[in-house]
Amino acid sequence: MHVDDLPIEQKIKYVQDTLFVISGKWKLPILIAISQGSNRFRDIQRQVLPITTRVLTKELRDLEQNKLVIRTVYDTSPVLVTYDVSAYCKSLKPLVDEMILWGKNHRKKLIE
Amino acid sequence: MHVDDLPIEQKIKYVQDTLFVISGKWKLPILIAISQGSNRFRDIQRQVLPITTRVLTKELRDLEQNKLVIRTVYDTSPVLVTYDVSAYCKSLKPLVDEMILWGKNHRKKLIE
Repeated sequence: MHVDDLPIEQKIKYVQDTLFVISGKWKLPILIAISQGSNRFRDIQRQVLPITTRVLTKELRDLEQNKLVIRTVYDTSPVLVTYDVSAYCKSLKPLVDEMILWGKNHRKKLIE
Repeated sequence: MHVDDLPIEQKIKYVQDTLFVISGKWKLPILIAISQGSNRFRDIQRQVLPITTRVLTKELRDLEQNKLVIRTVYDTSPVLVTYDVSAYCKSLKPLVDEMILWGKNHRKKLIE
């Protein structure tokens, strides 16, 4: 079924579901940072400034619950914890690419 | 320039700009409702439940400032106010379609 054929109530519901997962200032930036090679907490935090430790902890937990991030704990001393994007997370790429393009253009638009 | 070639800091900035405009529970649902023919305040409100009058007023103002919604006041008695999506608003369609598809699929994914 094509998107345009969905009833409006369904469209709104699915968009709200998506927004619920990716909304807010941090989730997508965190996913971008991880997917580009920041795999440890402090590296992610450095890339996504000025996020606080408390907020980043919460956001990573939410992303893990939504199956977008995989947290791995290595039994080393000291314990090593890494974050990776899941294979499923890659399904967000078309959406994120659209957001990058739109944000790039919107800046110009507001100056017009 | 292709999206993938942008530096990560730029990507994050553009995504944050886009999120700033469309984030939250209501803005896209409001735009969808208007674009599907709800052009008056009460009609929009009915379609985007349970939004309050106060929040809808604020959201419509934000959307107008971002050039996505056009508010027209007709000099009738009583005064008639209509809301339309701008031509520019249509630039959000690829993004919104991606969000509908993603939200539709995500529901299944979480049950897996």
